[in-house]
Amino acid sequence: MTLLSIVAFDRFTDIDVFMPWDLLFRAKAAGASDWTIKILGKTDHVTSVAGLRIPTHGRLEETADSDVVIFASGVGVADVLNDREFLDALHLDEERQLIGSMCAGAVILAEKGLLKGRRATTYPTYFKRLAEYEGVEVVDEAFVRNGNVATAGGCLAAQLLCGWITETLASAELADAVIASILPVGQGCKAFTGWGDPAAAKAVAAAAAPVRAAVAAE
Amino acid sequence: MTLLSIVAFDRFTDIDVFMPWDLLFRAKAAGASDWTIKILGKTDHVTSVAGLRIPTHGRLEETADSDVVIFASGVGVADVLNDREFLDALHLDEERQLIGSMCAGAVILAEKGLLKGRRATTYPTYFKRLAEYEGVEVVDEAFVRNGNVATAGGCLAAQLLCGWITETLASAELADAVIASILPVGQGCKAFTGWGDPAAAKAVAAAAAPVRAAVAAE
Repeated sequence: MTLLSIVAFDRFTDIDVFMPWDLLFRAKAAGASDWTIKILGKTDHVTSVAGLRIPTHGRLEETADSDVVIFASGVGVADVLNDREFLDALHLDEERQLIGSMCAGAVILAEKGLLKGRRATTYPTYFKRLAEYEGVEVVDEAFVRNGNVATAGGCLAAQLLCGWITETLASAELADAVIASILPVGQGCKAFTGWGDPAAAKAVAAAAAPVRAAVAAE
Repeated sequence: MTLLSIVAFDRFTDIDVFMPWDLLFRAKAAGASDWTIKILGKTDHVTSVAGLRIPTHGRLEETADSDVVIFASGVGVADVLNDREFLDALHLDEERQLIGSMCAGAVILAEKGLLKGRRATTYPTYFKRLAEYEGVEVVDEAFVRNGNVATAGGCLAAQLLCGWITETLASAELADAVIASILPVGQGCKAFTGWGDPAAAKAVAAAAAPVRAAVAAE
């Protein structure tokens, strides 16, 4: 089992949780069948900035058992930065995990010391705040990766973040198939053969030979 | 009050509900303050294809009171087509509503007789099914509009569907601002001044003079 966790909090930005959630699920449905994808929170429910209350699948402490940890974004990140209990419950280890952030979630990575001496991106409203962390070079880019730690800026950059995770844990082919499946029709959209068709999904899985060993070796 | 409803059902495609939900909320937060956005369902909760159980904000019958009705997509649409009670609970009137579909949701529009004699798009896996409806010309395009009825194909085409709705009910400027706010950083992303700043939101609203009368006149 490979555990992929999305860390959410009250007043999260809806797309920044739900797009990774959907994209990772697609990868699982079309080949990465040993993946378990969870939304983790401090409480048993979290409410988005738009007012949608969703159940969480586990607590923040489960980050310790996660192979992948993605931090959501949203105006609620300001409360997270003031919540020592929340921050202390996060167990991150870039030696054995892929760790990423959407938009403002980058400041949580900075708070946990993961961006020191590194380039990083975030949502434009957080450029200044992120640059206050010592040794963080904030850049105006969609996706910045340092080994097993990556930051994505702008909601639609979730495609780059999840593409990296999928390519790293499964294959570039599966990552590409996932992205192609959400593109607008007539603009590269390629329907998923995996959806609801176990045989087809198996074929995709076979083509997407797991390359997890490469992550550890990197 | 302007009521914008997103119709969902069990095994809906996550992004196809949550992207319109997020984009319409952004428009509301940055100017279209009289909008009420609801997810409607047959039951008080619906569960996505990826397994996320969310509360609905009202029943299908509220489509009658809606100014905008968007139909979600997902493998669960097959069950909807066999559910006469579900279909009969939908009250649609293109004379006074904007009606749109994401991906496979187009077959619900066809089932309700809204696509007869019209061009329409859907998700590639539903091209054949949609073409079975008499008088529907299925095209390989991201967004197809016929007066107050529109179909979008491919998850990311939600931007075109919500852009059309926002432009029609508010302004092109607000529609553009919403899309720009989710683009990847360094690729056109422009942060929303409206977020959590009522004064800024008010300025955006003033610039986005409501043009609803134009819809009725069209």
